[in-house]
Amino acid sequence: MATNENRTSPGTERKTVLSIDGMGGDAGPEAIVGGMEISAKINPDIHFLLHGDSNVFTPLLGKHPILASRVELRDADKVVSMHDKPSAVVRNGKGTSMWNALQSVKDGEATVAVSCGNTGALMALSMLVLRKLPGVNRPAIAVLWPKTTQGHNVLLDLGADIKADADDLMKYAIMGASYARNGLGVQRPRIGVLNIGTEDHKGRPELAEAGEMIQSVQDLADLEYIGFVEGSDMSNPDVDVIVTDGFTGNVALKAGEGTAKLIRGFLKDAFTHTPLAKLAAIFARASLRRLSHRIDPRRQNGGVFLGLNGTVVKSHGGADATGVSAAIKLAFKLAQSGFSEKLAARVAIGASTLQTAEQESSKA
Amino acid sequence: MATNENRTSPGTERKTVLSIDGMGGDAGPEAIVGGMEISAKINPDIHFLLHGDSNVFTPLLGKHPILASRVELRDADKVVSMHDKPSAVVRNGKGTSMWNALQSVKDGEATVAVSCGNTGALMALSMLVLRKLPGVNRPAIAVLWPKTTQGHNVLLDLGADIKADADDLMKYAIMGASYARNGLGVQRPRIGVLNIGTEDHKGRPELAEAGEMIQSVQDLADLEYIGFVEGSDMSNPDVDVIVTDGFTGNVALKAGEGTAKLIRGFLKDAFTHTPLAKLAAIFARASLRRLSHRIDPRRQNGGVFLGLNGTVVKSHGGADATGVSAAIKLAFKLAQSGFSEKLAARVAIGASTLQTAEQESSKA
Repeated sequence: MATNENRTSPGTERKTVLSIDGMGGDAGPEAIVGGMEISAKINPDIHFLLHGDSNVFTPLLGKHPILASRVELRDADKVVSMHDKPSAVVRNGKGTSMWNALQSVKDGEATVAVSCGNTGALMALSMLVLRKLPGVNRPAIAVLWPKTTQGHNVLLDLGADIKADADDLMKYAIMGASYARNGLGVQRPRIGVLNIGTEDHKGRPELAEAGEMIQSVQDLADLEYIGFVEGSDMSNPDVDVIVTDGFTGNVALKAGEGTAKLIRGFLKDAFTHTPLAKLAAIFARASLRRLSHRIDPRRQNGGVFLGLNGTVVKSHGGADATGVSAAIKLAFKLAQSGFSEKLAARVAIGASTLQTAEQESSKA
Repeated sequence: MATNENRTSPGTERKTVLSIDGMGGDAGPEAIVGGMEISAKINPDIHFLLHGDSNVFTPLLGKHPILASRVELRDADKVVSMHDKPSAVVRNGKGTSMWNALQSVKDGEATVAVSCGNTGALMALSMLVLRKLPGVNRPAIAVLWPKTTQGHNVLLDLGADIKADADDLMKYAIMGASYARNGLGVQRPRIGVLNIGTEDHKGRPELAEAGEMIQSVQDLADLEYIGFVEGSDMSNPDVDVIVTDGFTGNVALKAGEGTAKLIRGFLKDAFTHTPLAKLAAIFARASLRRLSHRIDPRRQNGGVFLGLNGTVVKSHGGADATGVSAAIKLAFKLAQSGFSEKLAARVAIGASTLQTAEQESSKA
């Protein structure tokens, strides 16, 4: 089964249903419906279960009749706000649009859930509703980051948990590799462990241990372990998946995003500083647009929750319609590839291999 | 004494002698002598003790007679290479140009040492030769990172140690504040603790504890604690000093540097992609030069080692003459401000305050 991971068997194609949390996000229901419409126009196979307040969404969908024909609206008038604590949402979240969006995946009505809501609450509810995959101790959030050449690297964990031991990092490698294969089409993803130097003796002891564990599963998980990588390798084309604990990953991603924003600001300054600079900007418009397109964070919008019985795509809280549509596109791609089942199979192989290895080494 | 930290008293000016490790670095002795010459031309008060192989440096200085008159060459034919392990250098490093450069600071012949060599070895030798300041458990490496507006933020630790507990982070705050005051002229630096969210309950428990400790010393250390900051705040103009453990800081800095490099590459692509884009680049030349000047990593080159009896500036290993000159400029500024003594006084106050507070709370 696992060796067929990259093939789409004939006859397995079907109407793909995504479950959308309509109420999360800072940009409001308009941005979410706007994103759904962009995606629906591009993808004729896409269908939605939309969870949210029908008083809000019925009139909104009325303005988008083509989209409306592909949407089944499920009334949910309770909302998880950006400021709700995950622990409170776990206790009182039943009946929220976020909970119901996850429940539709759990019940098999939809393949992947998409939410723009509060990340901590979404992860807590995902663990409660979908449950962790057998063999996974800590689920992870994975994101894509541009390579210096073409394509993207997968980074995880981005903050599902603040800690990760060697075993967690090994599972992240297996899950990240499966994501790179199904989401990005990389046949045998190259895995690096994030550290503060590339020499074997550098950094925390659990990182070297994680490296050995990843190496031991590389054939069964169809991945290649390439050793330690550094923060400066986030865009390195010689790696495909970078694994780290959620604290470090969160800081690294935000440091990268912050720097991109810093330079966008500098660039804007440089082309508005003098009247001559403004004139130059007119000549340079096509080049600047090309650049801005490449570093537009909305076009790669979607953290994927890995390690659950089901796939959840977390869109940025402030995403506009373009951003929401990018998250939906990613969810659709993962749904069509049968990602959830393939990931589960890989993790199961990884877990049983390790168990066998441990049993054998305890016999030896 | 500490309250006079920002003033240069009349009559205290003197010939400033910097101690240079001539043999470290990937760009060779030419880059180091080149950087010294740039700085010597700009600063008539600057003098150098240069440690390195006289067979190499005597002919090199012969080509730069004006610089040569300000340099005292000290023969040291042993070199610490980029690949030497810190533990080996501690055992066998005596007589290397790196060791001798630090020894000159220890002996009071020079005020600040500058090296382009192996960071781990330089920190290990600095701790051995200069010794840690009383009250400092973990020394730190601090760097400057551009604000979105003007000026720079101080980040530390960048990898002197992979761990930091709450007490270490509090000392980093005191040391970083002193650096911001003497190196950047910020009277009452605002301190943030790096975390994965700004709410009080986020992240590791030692970070909240560090926050409380920093708050408790803010008047005596003349700083303002502003709470948690995130990776995206590295360029935030509302903070001046960001403290974190050396693992996280190293990853954050390199993630930022890597992203800057990524975007420089994209920018180059955008302006060479078509003949029209190349034409636009000619019109945009002044703007692009302005931008490239602002994001040129060579212009802010120098990690400062804090928490030792003496100041050490670590230049980037691959620094060219421009980069070396930036590191020397920083060393000169810190030397002239009497930074080492002022930092020591601040740390002593911080340590004794805490001791008093602990004694009082144990009595209560």
